Order: sequence, then C-alpha cells, then structure tokens
Amino acid sequence: MNQVIPDIAFLHELADAADKQTLPRFRSRGSLHVSSKPKEGYRFDPVTDADREAERVMRELITARYPDHAIMGEEFGTTGSGPVRWVLDPVDGTRPFLCGLPVWGTLIGLTVEGRGHMGMMNQPFTGERFWADGQQAGYRGPLGTFQLQTRKGISLDQAILHTTSPEPVSRFPNVNFAALEASTLMIRYGGECYAMAMLAAGQIDLCLEFSLQPYDIVALVPIIEQAGGVVTTLSGNRPEAGGQILASGCPHLHEQALRILNS
Amino acid sequence: MNQVIPDIAFLHELADAADKQTLPRFRSRGSLHVSSKPKEGYRFDPVTDADREAERVMRELITARYPDHAIMGEEFGTTGSGPVRWVLDPVDGTRPFLCGLPVWGTLIGLTVEGRGHMGMMNQPFTGERFWADGQQAGYRGPLGTFQLQTRKGISLDQAILHTTSPEPVSRFPNVNFAALEASTLMIRYGGECYAMAMLAAGQIDLCLEFSLQPYDIVALVPIIEQAGGVVTTLSGNRPEAGGQILASGCPHLHEQALRILNS
Repeated sequence: MNQVIPDIAFLHELADAADKQTLPRFRSRGSLHVSSKPKEGYRFDPVTDADREAERVMRELITARYPDHAIMGEEFGTTGSGPVRWVLDPVDGTRPFLCGLPVWGTLIGLTVEGRGHMGMMNQPFTGERFWADGQQAGYRGPLGTFQLQTRKGISLDQAILHTTSPEPVSRFPNVNFAALEASTLMIRYGGECYAMAMLAAGQIDLCLEFSLQPYDIVALVPIIEQAGGVVTTLSGNRPEAGGQILASGCPHLHEQALRILNS
Repeated sequence: MNQVIPDIAFLHELADAADKQTLPRFRSRGSLHVSSKPKEGYRFDPVTDADREAERVMRELITARYPDHAIMGEEFGTTGSGPVRWVLDPVDGTRPFLCGLPVWGTLIGLTVEGRGHMGMMNQPFTGERFWADGQQAGYRGPLGTFQLQTRKGISLDQAILHTTSPEPVSRFPNVNFAALEASTLMIRYGGECYAMAMLAAGQIDLCLEFSLQPYDIVALVPIIEQAGGVVTTLSGNRPEAGGQILASGCPHLHEQALRILNS
C-alpha cells in the first residue's frame, strides 16, 4: 500500500499545473467563459473555463503517474475505484473568483480507504499553499515556510466564527446557528476554503458550512487535523462525505460548539 | 490652491510607511494587541496596534510635509481645518485582518472643499494598490500596472452585488435589500474595502454598505468615480459623510438599484 502514496512534491506539481489554468483567467472578465450549473438552493452556481481546464490537467497528471488511483472531481465526476482516491476541486470558491477576491483555492485531496490522508489548498494569486503530508501540516507563501498549527486553549467567548454565506441559516432551522454566533467573539462571512486554511493557521477558531460536497472538504480535512484541529459533521461523524460540517481549532471548542449547534 | 495638492507619489509614501506597521502584525496573533471599541450594533469592534501605529506614522508624514492640511483619522480623530483634508483609515477591515483574510486595506483619502479628490486603497499582503490621482484611477500589483475601469453596459440581472455583512439587513428595514438581491445575478459577502476596489476594477457591479463612517469611504470615492463608477448615499447625495452608501459600475445600474432599494 505505502508505495503508491505520493510524496507531497507531487501535490505541488498538480498545483503548479492548475495555476497555469486558473491564474491567467482570474480577473479577466472579458475573456472568461462563465455558465451556471443547477444546484439546490442557488439560482446561479457558476462554473468557468478555469474550473474545467484546471481539473483536466490535474487528472491527466494523476492518471499518467498513478493509473490505479481513483479520481473524484467537481467538474468531471468519478473515475476508477480502489483504496486510494484523489478528490479535486479545481476552483473552490468560483463566486469569489468571479468577484476578483483572492479567497478561492484549488483543493487537492487524497483519501485512503475513504479517510482524508493528504491535502493541499493552493491560492496562486497570494502565492500561498497550505498542505498536509500525512503527518503534519505546512505553509509556504509570502510569510515564509513553516508548520501550521491551530490556536489552542481559547474560550468560546473569545473565539472567531466563520461561515461562507448567511443564506443557509434560515434553510437549516435544525442548526442552532444563532446560539453559536451569540456565544462567540465575532462572526465573519465570505471566506470559503481560505477560511478553513486560516483555521489551520490559528487565525479563525470555528468554521461552519451547511451543505458541502466531498470535493469541498476532503482536501481540507487532513490539513485541519494535522494542524491540530478537529473537523466532523454536526453529528460528530467523519467529514469526508460532506454535508453540514464544523471545523474547530481544538477538541474542547469543537465539543462545546457541536452541543450548542444541536441544542 | 493647486500647489498644495500632493502628487500621487506622496500617497505611495504614506502607504509604504503604513505597510511597515501593518504587515508585520498581520497573522501574528500571539504578539498583536487587540481591544474593543464600543460601537452601535456591534458587541465587539476590534482595534489593534496595527491600526494605531499605521495612522500615527501617516499623520507624522503629512504634518511634516503639509502642515496646513487637516487630518481626520479613524483612531485619532480630526486635527486642523481648511479646504484640504486627509481622511485616513489605517486598517479598513480590522475583522478580516484578525481572521488572516487579505481583504483589509489601508485607506488614504484627500478631500478638497469636502469632496473626494484623490485616494488610495493599499493591500500590502497581496502587494496591491488601487488609487485615484485626481484624474484617473490606477492599479499596481501582481497583475501589472494599469488604469482601472468599472464594468459598463451590464444589465441588473447579470450584476454581481456585494455587501460586507448581512447583519444590518434586518436593522435597516427602510432599505429594500431583498428586492435588490433578488434582481441581481449573485450576492457576495465579506469584502470590505477590497470589494469596492474590485468594483473599480470591473469585477463587482454593485456594493452596498449600511453604516459607513467618512474614513471608511472617502478614499474609495475618487477611485470609484475616476474608474467610471458612481457612489452616493441611498438618497442620491454625495457619499463623503458616510452612512448608507451604494457604489455602482455605471450610472444606469446605479439609478435602477437606488430605485429598488428605496421601493
């Protein structure tokens, strides 16, 4: 089994290839082709050439190097089967991508037997990569290269909470979002995968998302876990299948927040 | 009068000085001093050393070079009087600053007889500056150096709308936000001054903010106007005093959006 698990260098290769497709299209409204996919709860779910082309080049590289690995991607579905699976979101945050805001990312995840093992969040405009190599989480960017660690020992009333959009709050009345928000120091909207990376980096303490797909979260799971954080569904189960997901900087905060959300 | 209006190079000098105070404190949670100012509608309004020190160094440079100019800043209030006034927000978006999200900015505005004349939005982590020199709006950053232009000729149903936070929506029932949101292609949250800069850059078409202070908007007014956009209060008046502010990429869209918001 071990010999087919790639080195983190291969995830950097995939990210480099994706960058060549995404970055030239970022803020190039005139030449960018945008269309909409139907999606529950949204009347407009954008997809662009950047999404499709970045996934295509990553799939080509993976298939050439690891022909036995399965691949699940946002744009082209699932191919192959077996214990090792790549999970790709070429542009997580197509909406901020369209707005010109640098909080989108290319997500590259690898699961073994369904569990997140390695992952990368790649933001080429800021020149930042956040990754997990199977043992620890790392960062490379304008601030240098270093290990990522979540913030520990913070009380709930000093915690920073993030959710990407307020829209689902009313669609999911089973989630007591208002109570959690009232228990924390402040709430922030609009961060997508970048906010999860900031949780791994110890800047944000709680990230709540209401309806994630596997490709939205799988790459981030090992980054958060190997940085010392916790990420589960709101029922406390493994997060790789997506759904309603909470990520926390430390186990104590996670337990408190889950209890409030389910109250 | 003309001889006392600075060159845009001086705004770059101010931004350089601010960067030395803000950037080393960005993502340095352990060593950053954070406190809270009381503010209407928020139980936590953060202020940090980065805010205070960046405003202090900009004030020193302005006072040395232009001792006759008035200065209004978020942290240290108003000093001096006269027709030429600097309006400074050392860190617009202290919340994203605390979260590690690169959508905050240092805002440097200059008004003449109360009207926005020059301005700069400076984001040192991405290495971007957006400015207005009194005649046209410019950009310098990872994408090069070029003139900024808003997007024109887009219909309301294809327009991208931005507002920083959903919280004020229920506090201001006089603003028909729901109707505007339903008329546009998509809405995006969490961008602060960076979203206004993206409006000047032609990525976002409408930016609505519910309760701005003068220092939150003055620097952005000339950038938006000199890029071809429109920015007013929701009553259609000049925006320099803040309040409920709408910025639009073109006059036609602005009129439509104001009509809907006031309906």
